[in-house]
Amino acid sequence: MTIDIAPELSVSEWLNTDTPLTLAGLRGRPVLLHAFQMLCPGCVSHGTPQTQRAHDMFRNSDLQVIGLHTVFEHHAAMTPVSLKAFVHENRLTFPIGVDTAGEDTPVPVTMATYGMQGTPTLILIRRNGTVYHHGFGQQDDMAVGAMIAAVLSET
Amino acid sequence: MTIDIAPELSVSEWLNTDTPLTLAGLRGRPVLLHAFQMLCPGCVSHGTPQTQRAHDMFRNSDLQVIGLHTVFEHHAAMTPVSLKAFVHENRLTFPIGVDTAGEDTPVPVTMATYGMQGTPTLILIRRNGTVYHHGFGQQDDMAVGAMIAAVLSET
Amino acid sequence: MTIDIAPELSVSEWLNTDTPLTLAGLRGRPVLLHAFQMLCPGCVSHGTPQTQRAHDMFRNSDLQVIGLHTVFEHHAAMTPVSLKAFVHENRLTFPIGVDTAGEDTPVPVTMATYGMQGTPTLILIRRNGTVYHHGFGQQDDMAVGAMIAAVLSET
Amino acid sequence: MTIDIAPELSVSEWLNTDTPLTLAGLRGRPVLLHAFQMLCPGCVSHGTPQTQRAHDMFRNSDLQVIGLHTVFEHHAAMTPVSLKAFVHENRLTFPIGVDTAGEDTPVPVTMATYGMQGTPTLILIRRNGTVYHHGFGQQDDMAVGAMIAAVLSET
Repeated sequence: MTIDIAPELSVSEWLNTDTPLTLAGLRGRPVLLHAFQMLCPGCVSHGTPQTQRAHDMFRNSDLQVIGLHTVFEHHAAMTPVSLKAFVHENRLTFPIGVDTAGEDTPVPVTMATYGMQGTPTLILIRRNGTVYHHGFGQQDDMAVGAMIAAVLSET
Repeated sequence: MTIDIAPELSVSEWLNTDTPLTLAGLRGRPVLLHAFQMLCPGCVSHGTPQTQRAHDMFRNSDLQVIGLHTVFEHHAAMTPVSLKAFVHENRLTFPIGVDTAGEDTPVPVTMATYGMQGTPTLILIRRNGTVYHHGFGQQDDMAVGAMIAAVLSET
Repeated sequence: MTIDIAPELSVSEWLNTDTPLTLAGLRGRPVLLHAFQMLCPGCVSHGTPQTQRAHDMFRNSDLQVIGLHTVFEHHAAMTPVSLKAFVHENRLTFPIGVDTAGEDTPVPVTMATYGMQGTPTLILIRRNGTVYHHGFGQQDDMAVGAMIAAVLSET
Repeated sequence: MTIDIAPELSVSEWLNTDTPLTLAGLRGRPVLLHAFQMLCPGCVSHGTPQTQRAHDMFRNSDLQVIGLHTVFEHHAAMTPVSLKAFVHENRLTFPIGVDTAGEDTPVPVTMATYGMQGTPTLILIRRNGTVYHHGFGQQDDMAVGAMIAAVLSET
């Protein structure tokens, strides 16, 4: 059965990486996926800097941190041009994909596929491709550290 | 002599006010001017919420709080459309003017006139139109409260 | 009438000052009175460091900052010996008086006289000896700065 | 060889537990040991509340959290009577041992045995009784969560 495998990302453009990333290509490694919007206050104040800290803290492990810009409101205000300035000003260094715009819906494709409730959303995927954690809203630092270590310890 | 009078604002567009504001029109009232950029991390995390708190705290006084969007970098990323979404998401309710774009320079007009070093900049203007305080960078809450009360007590 | 004049302090022991302080002797100057207990979490995390910041910020004014150790619970745990270690470890430099123990009541004398509800309590006294502000619990930094500046501006 | 086994605790009095705890008796379970002093500002503001959060977060695991009151200065100010009030006021619920006073030295026994540099010190002990982490000063929440999860995953 493939029903529990985390769906593939749909990304229209990448920042901070020369080659596009896919969950299929990352199978065998844990993946921390931070879905955000650059004008979402809870992302800017907490979720996005927390993700950067996780990227820095686990840089010597095989954890892959990925940001996903899931714009579902104020589309004209959060274009890739604005996102690039945001990434530069906030010194974000982890790979960030722009979630593919939806057709006939303001919700982008990956956001819809995962049934995300809003931003920030933090999703942690196991080495085997299944979802270990899917959390909406502010996530506690200690809990995030513990979850990442737990999936890193899995074989 | 008029040399010490704070120069007039040059604003191309206003948010959160039906009528344009001018320092000349506000003479007799103290004015708190917060110059910011919507993608400046120090503004978003500290200066802009502090200005909103000042706007709320002194709402029963005759202090006039004004935001000034002084874009001097990443111009394509911080357009009025993006600014409106930022203001909405961060629930900013004080009047905000867009500093008029400079000619042959990335620095907007009012920013240049005042010789601001960057964002955030906080300028406090007395009832008589002279500058009481011009500070670049993070300003301490207790100090800001004290400065506002000091200019409010002046006649 | 003297009914509005802030009652005199009753202090059994002073720290950080060679000479005892009295409100009568300070008449003509504003007084910021911070009532606290060294084991009160809200004092340690917020009120006491805020008072130290006010002491530092207004050092060039004639504001007099005074701490008052108003022990109304856990008396054996918050003796003057423990208080001295607390003051040393937290690098408090403003004068601190030990509120005189009550007779037949756990509530000390000054705390009872002022009708304080608990700790921390912040009381701001005008130059003329009347109470400008009496607040129980966490006080906002910007508001404290504004209140101090307001009483400093009074003649 | 037993050289790497964490030395046994030397405790003169326990709070928050009916039965004394020993590392020997806890062998097979990870142990998080938080050494603190009730008047150490860095403990009160960060280390001790962090330890309480770890105690709460991992309550359904077999992690044992232990506080150790390692008084090496201001001995008269941090007696067991004062400690009990501190524990009550700060709502600490994990077991806390009072490190046995040293003979001819201000440094208590367990603190000396472990070579702790001061407070706060955080020590994490594996199921097999060896030390996984020994850190002096402020520890990052995310790192603490990751370390605890790592030792929990060991067999």
